[in-house]
Amino acid sequence: MNPAKQQHRSLWITEKEAGVVKVIDQRFLPHKLVVEDLASVDDVVRAISEMHVRGAGLIGVAAGFGIYLAALHGPRDDSFDRHLDSASKKLKETRPTAANLAWAVDRTLKEIRTGGSPAEKIRIAFDAAEKIMLEELENCRMIGVHGLELIREISERKNGETVNILTHCNAGFLAFVDHGSATAPIYAALEEGIDLHVWIDETRPWNQGSRLTAWEMSERGVPHTIITDNMGGHLMQHGMVDIVIVGSDRTTFTGDVANKAGTYLKALAARDNGVPFYVALTVSSFDWKIEDGVSRIPIEMRSGDEVRYARGLYGDDIVDVLIAPQGSKALNYSFDITPARLVTGLITERGVCAAEREGILGLYPEKRPPVGGRQPGLPAPD
Amino acid sequence: MNPAKQQHRSLWITEKEAGVVKVIDQRFLPHKLVVEDLASVDDVVRAISEMHVRGAGLIGVAAGFGIYLAALHGPRDDSFDRHLDSASKKLKETRPTAANLAWAVDRTLKEIRTGGSPAEKIRIAFDAAEKIMLEELENCRMIGVHGLELIREISERKNGETVNILTHCNAGFLAFVDHGSATAPIYAALEEGIDLHVWIDETRPWNQGSRLTAWEMSERGVPHTIITDNMGGHLMQHGMVDIVIVGSDRTTFTGDVANKAGTYLKALAARDNGVPFYVALTVSSFDWKIEDGVSRIPIEMRSGDEVRYARGLYGDDIVDVLIAPQGSKALNYSFDITPARLVTGLITERGVCAAEREGILGLYPEKRPPVGGRQPGLPAPD
Repeated sequence: MNPAKQQHRSLWITEKEAGVVKVIDQRFLPHKLVVEDLASVDDVVRAISEMHVRGAGLIGVAAGFGIYLAALHGPRDDSFDRHLDSASKKLKETRPTAANLAWAVDRTLKEIRTGGSPAEKIRIAFDAAEKIMLEELENCRMIGVHGLELIREISERKNGETVNILTHCNAGFLAFVDHGSATAPIYAALEEGIDLHVWIDETRPWNQGSRLTAWEMSERGVPHTIITDNMGGHLMQHGMVDIVIVGSDRTTFTGDVANKAGTYLKALAARDNGVPFYVALTVSSFDWKIEDGVSRIPIEMRSGDEVRYARGLYGDDIVDVLIAPQGSKALNYSFDITPARLVTGLITERGVCAAEREGILGLYPEKRPPVGGRQPGLPAPD
Repeated sequence: MNPAKQQHRSLWITEKEAGVVKVIDQRFLPHKLVVEDLASVDDVVRAISEMHVRGAGLIGVAAGFGIYLAALHGPRDDSFDRHLDSASKKLKETRPTAANLAWAVDRTLKEIRTGGSPAEKIRIAFDAAEKIMLEELENCRMIGVHGLELIREISERKNGETVNILTHCNAGFLAFVDHGSATAPIYAALEEGIDLHVWIDETRPWNQGSRLTAWEMSERGVPHTIITDNMGGHLMQHGMVDIVIVGSDRTTFTGDVANKAGTYLKALAARDNGVPFYVALTVSSFDWKIEDGVSRIPIEMRSGDEVRYARGLYGDDIVDVLIAPQGSKALNYSFDITPARLVTGLITERGVCAAEREGILGLYPEKRPPVGGRQPGLPAPD
């Protein structure tokens, strides 16, 4: 299969190779397009924890297929269910912040429980994982439809002058399967011929912005400029940003947004300069249980070496270079929480809403706790 | 001369080598301690513009010596003054944001004008440059004396528990000649035995934090942790920062602060979380003419390649690696402006004051415009 043909997908399945999930190994972008075969749940666990694949949507989809691969290679006796529970635990432990991962694992497991024989369960697992993938695809497409309105409005107000959009990290097709969340409105606006330009925060330490988002934008011909994570405030102070659109790894039903570390700082700058700050997410990134994001969403801490080293192209090789004193330690919180009060609105597959309980439950009424039911803050579980 | 003996100086003069200014070439830190001889004004111009030396105080001192070297090698006829004017212009054009540079050049030139023969002017130039250096040294030491009070107060309030200080960029001895501005209170507190720990923003793109401040802290035994520029907000949200202290390249007499890009974002986070945000600076960094920093302080734009590449140690070599797609462009604003309203106070050699006109002019009454004199906003020139 020619990876060039798959440029709109970060993960795909080939009929011919049952039991193999193909992904772009994102560690080598933008310098090399490496396609990796994931053939076991351990392959998927490693791919997620070592960030061959990353991004809220994509790790959810990959985890769904991880359960399928666990089932496929599982024992054909009474221990089948225990085997799946253990696989599920391993998958969930890879990355704690994104809501999508646990959501996809639980949903796939729940579906499997309706099956009888292991063979039937394997088929159900595949179908469930594929369904999650197709739903994410369609949900991202719909984010594009709704988010396009916001960009079009700015373009009209500016009489067709360039709309400047700032984004942080990568919430592009590489973070999902296609379209992306934060990028879907951008791609939709580009297709409509709106004059736009994207400021891409490089997003240290892993440089998802300068490595992945810039690569995506280059591939799809979106005018863009890379900036350091430090520069967005200055740009906003000088009217050089019309709108900020970022993704989310988990958003509480009260509107608090977990996203890549540094998002909170951009939201503060947007508020200080009257720049609209939007968060794009699909239903799978919502957390319907946690009320206070700042105190309760678990924040992943990764190795300090991601901070102490930078990865890049040297000659023809991709190498890691030490950018700190040998003896200095570094801390690496991967995410931060942007309180709902700083978020102008959420762009979801069902439309745009305010980042607060009523706005969100208005779009997802089925998540509303039953009357006389649970205490506020604990709506019906998924 | 043994550079190890000079660990407290970023620039020094040896009696034996008249006409040579020795500096640490900061491009190779923390991996290699390279000492460079500057022997002409062009050497100084190159060293400043290519950032062998950097930091508000140090480039001022270096520029003062640059004028001395220009005088030393200048023509011995009527064109001597024209030669100095041209040297002065070259020096001032290297970096536009820091107030210190033009201040030191103008001050040295003014002194020179009191001399008669070229030989006398050369001697005056050396004395003027040396005086600027010694004054910066003493002023930084005094910032330590005054800033120590702030740290001691926090330590006492916390009953001796670790005081966590966050700093951005390098406003250490490498940015001055000794002590540093933002670091002077830290070194003073350490000497007093106060339990403290410093969070160092790596400060992309040039990594003054992870390369220079971390090296300084390692050399002087200050407990520290490197973080990306994205993480400070999260730390402040979780009570992990007691005080922010940064330096400044230029501060208006109304309290607006130009400092390394990203400072503004940290000031916003500090305000949002009730963390005191202090700026340490000597008199040479004040701008007594500009009233509105955001609109009027010139912001240097450096090459986008500083963003597209990262410098680090690979094996035994210091190399630059490409961290972005080959075809993507990058923008590199070096500084931003933190409006006075976000600054808790200024730490100067004369004491701590509020970041507003009355506070600043209270410490520097000689800068107050004469009664019935100039319009507000244009106090007497230096």
